[in-house]
Amino acid sequence: MVRYALLIEYNGSNFNGWQTQHGVPTVQSSLEAALSDFADEDISTITAGRTDSGVHALGQVVHFDTNAKRKLHGWVTAVNSKLPHEIRVKQAAIVDEKFDARFSARKREYHYYLSMRSTHSALLNKLVGHYPHGLDVELMQQAASSLVGVHDFSSFRASDCQARNAVRTIYKAQLHRNGDMLRFEFTANAFLYHMVRNLVGALIYVGNKRINIAQFNDLLNQHDRKLAPPTFMPDGLYLVNVEYSDNIFPEHKFDSWLYNL
Amino acid sequence: MVRYALLIEYNGSNFNGWQTQHGVPTVQSSLEAALSDFADEDISTITAGRTDSGVHALGQVVHFDTNAKRKLHGWVTAVNSKLPHEIRVKQAAIVDEKFDARFSARKREYHYYLSMRSTHSALLNKLVGHYPHGLDVELMQQAASSLVGVHDFSSFRASDCQARNAVRTIYKAQLHRNGDMLRFEFTANAFLYHMVRNLVGALIYVGNKRINIAQFNDLLNQHDRKLAPPTFMPDGLYLVNVEYSDNIFPEHKFDSWLYNL
Repeated sequence: MVRYALLIEYNGSNFNGWQTQHGVPTVQSSLEAALSDFADEDISTITAGRTDSGVHALGQVVHFDTNAKRKLHGWVTAVNSKLPHEIRVKQAAIVDEKFDARFSARKREYHYYLSMRSTHSALLNKLVGHYPHGLDVELMQQAASSLVGVHDFSSFRASDCQARNAVRTIYKAQLHRNGDMLRFEFTANAFLYHMVRNLVGALIYVGNKRINIAQFNDLLNQHDRKLAPPTFMPDGLYLVNVEYSDNIFPEHKFDSWLYNL
Repeated sequence: MVRYALLIEYNGSNFNGWQTQHGVPTVQSSLEAALSDFADEDISTITAGRTDSGVHALGQVVHFDTNAKRKLHGWVTAVNSKLPHEIRVKQAAIVDEKFDARFSARKREYHYYLSMRSTHSALLNKLVGHYPHGLDVELMQQAASSLVGVHDFSSFRASDCQARNAVRTIYKAQLHRNGDMLRFEFTANAFLYHMVRNLVGALIYVGNKRINIAQFNDLLNQHDRKLAPPTFMPDGLYLVNVEYSDNIFPEHKFDSWLYNL
């Protein structure tokens, strides 16, 4: 039995999220079908982040155990030949049996891309979010900065979030603007269900001045989802990196087209 | 009767090219259906460049005549509400009755985006071409430079190209590299059928050293399509700009995510 970790990229537009569900296409079921086919035995994967329907990944990580004896590179090239083009294995590594893609992860980084163009892009319509009504990005950055640190994020978790507690540590909450494109960068030890999309939704309310900075800070302190602005669309959300104590994919870099925006 | 010009953007991945054909989805038939619906009369369009199946546009231009009295902005917003998300009208303008989207065009600019990553991108798989086997970009630029000027491009036109003659003027043929992404920029008075994809194919043969610069120059002078390397995939090709003597869309800028690569 050998434990492998894979670095995965996918376009989530046409999948019902990560997790296997009966009768609908998901990233997990597509990946496990390709892995099982290559291994000639049933393979189950554990993932670092169970992304939602329509959410993308540039640096998703999974692990799995197998008795199949295959060359390491085959877990990239042969598996890719069996996967839909919207899912790519970028790297494979043999890992220690104590490594767990979910529980060994120390930090996750998500980016959200938001187009502020008046007309949404025909090319990027499922790859970036869209808000054409004007945003004060400096105010949004000011609000985002107050998220950094250890907080109870109950106001920004989905009502059906199953985590036992809502305390998370945010290490980075930064906005970068390039022309009409706005990139949100969030790094945390872990995220609650819908947390990034809820944070983006609330920051957009700051940017369009429906709430001010003090009201944004109140939201964080009120620990009540019902008081917060609605969840923003999934289209622009990317899991870009998962950090472990061992650097299992040392060559991982984010796609330049996204990262340079 | 008023003549309008529209600036159009589209993702060509799911269309059988620009031109209306019976029984298959094309950009022209989708656009004309939306325009006719909004105008409540049949509208036919003339285009600056009849792009091929799978080819994209950031700055396609069309014109049409109509008796329908509508606010100018409606030709953008109302028509967009009737179009598939992969086609967007970006701007509309009233133009002189002598303006012709095809025959008044003085220059066309096409870009080709080529990913050189070992594994093709799951996100961009229909939006950029892919060549993972190593390219000498400096040699390619050297070859591309010799294309600038007035030449007979018979070696780079499709065998079923219907243009009367193959002489075209190339004003710009430049390559830009950003990490694993290579952008080709071509500006000409007009292009022959498959000309950009054939030029990209031949420049890739220079980059992988299947032919040298002297052989590339010979190709240009031999005027024989059968001697030239094969047509490259359409995925990374974009019509980005059409230039007229009057600047009918003064605010047109290319999408920053592409242009900044």
